[in-house]
Amino acid sequence: MNTQIHSALQSLQYRDGVLTWAGRKLTEVVDEAGQTPLYVYDRARMSARVEELRATLPTRLHIYYAIKANPMPAVVAHMAELLDGLDIASAGELNTALETVVDRSRVSFAGPGKRDFEIQAAIEAGVTISVESVNEMQRIAALADSLGMRPNIVLRVNPVFELKSAGMKMGGRPSPFGIDAEQVPAALAKLKSLDLCFKGFHVYAWSQSLHAEGIAACIGSTVDLVLGLAAASDSDVATVNLGGGLGIPYFAKDRPLELATVAEAAECAVERLGEKLGDPEVIMELGRYLVGEAGVYVCRIVDVKESRGRRYAIADGGLHHHLSASGNLGQVIRRNYPIAAVERRQPEETTTIVGPLCTPLDVLGDRVTISRLDAGALIAVLQSGAYGKTASPENFLSHHPAAEILL
Amino acid sequence: MNTQIHSALQSLQYRDGVLTWAGRKLTEVVDEAGQTPLYVYDRARMSARVEELRATLPTRLHIYYAIKANPMPAVVAHMAELLDGLDIASAGELNTALETVVDRSRVSFAGPGKRDFEIQAAIEAGVTISVESVNEMQRIAALADSLGMRPNIVLRVNPVFELKSAGMKMGGRPSPFGIDAEQVPAALAKLKSLDLCFKGFHVYAWSQSLHAEGIAACIGSTVDLVLGLAAASDSDVATVNLGGGLGIPYFAKDRPLELATVAEAAECAVERLGEKLGDPEVIMELGRYLVGEAGVYVCRIVDVKESRGRRYAIADGGLHHHLSASGNLGQVIRRNYPIAAVERRQPEETTTIVGPLCTPLDVLGDRVTISRLDAGALIAVLQSGAYGKTASPENFLSHHPAAEILL
Repeated sequence: MNTQIHSALQSLQYRDGVLTWAGRKLTEVVDEAGQTPLYVYDRARMSARVEELRATLPTRLHIYYAIKANPMPAVVAHMAELLDGLDIASAGELNTALETVVDRSRVSFAGPGKRDFEIQAAIEAGVTISVESVNEMQRIAALADSLGMRPNIVLRVNPVFELKSAGMKMGGRPSPFGIDAEQVPAALAKLKSLDLCFKGFHVYAWSQSLHAEGIAACIGSTVDLVLGLAAASDSDVATVNLGGGLGIPYFAKDRPLELATVAEAAECAVERLGEKLGDPEVIMELGRYLVGEAGVYVCRIVDVKESRGRRYAIADGGLHHHLSASGNLGQVIRRNYPIAAVERRQPEETTTIVGPLCTPLDVLGDRVTISRLDAGALIAVLQSGAYGKTASPENFLSHHPAAEILL
Repeated sequence: MNTQIHSALQSLQYRDGVLTWAGRKLTEVVDEAGQTPLYVYDRARMSARVEELRATLPTRLHIYYAIKANPMPAVVAHMAELLDGLDIASAGELNTALETVVDRSRVSFAGPGKRDFEIQAAIEAGVTISVESVNEMQRIAALADSLGMRPNIVLRVNPVFELKSAGMKMGGRPSPFGIDAEQVPAALAKLKSLDLCFKGFHVYAWSQSLHAEGIAACIGSTVDLVLGLAAASDSDVATVNLGGGLGIPYFAKDRPLELATVAEAAECAVERLGEKLGDPEVIMELGRYLVGEAGVYVCRIVDVKESRGRRYAIADGGLHHHLSASGNLGQVIRRNYPIAAVERRQPEETTTIVGPLCTPLDVLGDRVTISRLDAGALIAVLQSGAYGKTASPENFLSHHPAAEILL
């Protein structure tokens, strides 16, 4: 089924025939953790990714970590130390953010259905609220008034362009996210009557994209959009959040993102915004791109069987811990994440790796070419550092949860 | 978008313009629970469904509740009192089962990746283990031996037929579930050397089917299969589990299952098996069919907005509590679950109902025709009693969990 080899599989490192992660043999890591399934995250890979970004992107660009990608507190703490800010999407993530060293003014709270208690907590904590609608702006103002506080806000804008797999496309679709670009002038006028501290704009227009040219075009259009809105406003624009959405390769045919192309566009964005708006803080918020390639999901094979010519290896983990690897979160056509045997054995065999759930949806690898897997063998699902454990139905069939470890 | 009206929407009951569930106004239920989102289950609907089954299906047919459909302990306890047994799929579900009045010999443990500690717990509890492979049979025997016990087992069979939307189809596909029918005679021979108490066969060949004729044909073929296997064996067959998989209508075009057709086939099955095998216990295991229509998922609208001609209502619940209603669990083409406004208001409007997550996947109702929803309004997603809360990524974006209540 897989004829191409995933780039992440090609760069794996083995010691004595055993796959290493964060410099450790995964067999030993599992022994120490005392259980599978287990997510293992590599701190050094996260740091290296940040260094690469710092070296490539403009130095004046602020990079925020989007907690939703991986909210493990140790991961968030590590990212807070390396980066400039945190992006949060709920009161729960606010609490996680406040446990770190982050400067509260550099925490950005976006999300279309903020509840009153969440807005109140955000105001009290002094974070910046990204406003998703005019109604929400009025609710924030009312809550701020009752608290006697004046929160920082940015307006999230739903642009008239979008990033498709074929590149940037003009159009302007309806969206639950942000205020339609054409409604922003009216929102800014309304804002004048409210006691809120306007800081700038937030545009998040694409996600998990590997299309560097398309991203670059969107960044350019975002700058056009923000400069146009700023010109129509008489408020200072101190903050411009360009969004993020840099993708990582999940499937064999995917090619890693050409970061240099994105960096060029970001450089141009920082220059243009700096010149016209007096050096605002320009932000890129990244989640998956920072941590996604730093994690593996390790399971143990519990049973193997042949059924009508197909070899099955049944793992102790699956859909309930790693929904996206099973193909059930946003994929239309199911494709395999890269999977490696932790212990290299000959011969390679074509094996279908499934989880323990009583549903045919629980497939981790459909007809994978992999080292022979017998009962007791360990496998590692790669590219599992983002949208893994917390994006999965952990309580499904009342199996026990996956453990997590940051090395 | 929806031109047909879902049958479940047509039968809803309102009092003073407020939707009732379990005889209570949902506004009051929410007030008492003190939070949304909230799953509300109706005990009387579950009981009525059981009564309907008892009245329609052969009296000698044993009905088991598959805990995976809804493992809320109060629901499981209720079903254990009404029904003949429980079907479990993990050590966690075993624990839930053991808290009820169920006779332990009438707990059936199936699942393709049973771990040693799960098998051991099942042996110690005295439940019946449904064997998914020859390797697993040997593992069970070894663990039983070390415990000095002799567990009841049934062999789960992967049949050569399957139920497709067009009806029953012969073929015989590879599967991680059960032992291929053609390998069962060899497995039975192997079993003779093991100190296990063979009770019979388990065939689970379809799921969520509304195709009564197809189910009836599969039940007939299951009986043929079991009688053939029994004839090739010299062991008594005391138990035959026919599986379940009776569907409920989720989408507007779905028609409720014609239970009478299934009942006829079940009657015939019980007769034929009884005659040839000396009145074995014949089991049907049901989950979704028993509880799926007895539950609603109630959310509150937090914000409403217009974006480029589309009206959005943003709810405080969504994909993280109800993955299947968002279309992200097993659906290829996303379709809406039936959704009702808890308070009837004029006029009806076409509204897209989304959840609070920062992902375009978080849609509960795409362009639904529904009573005008303003901020603060409550909605009820119907057909939500099965595969809801525990089949969803509850920790995604660190929002707080949904509550559950059984009325």
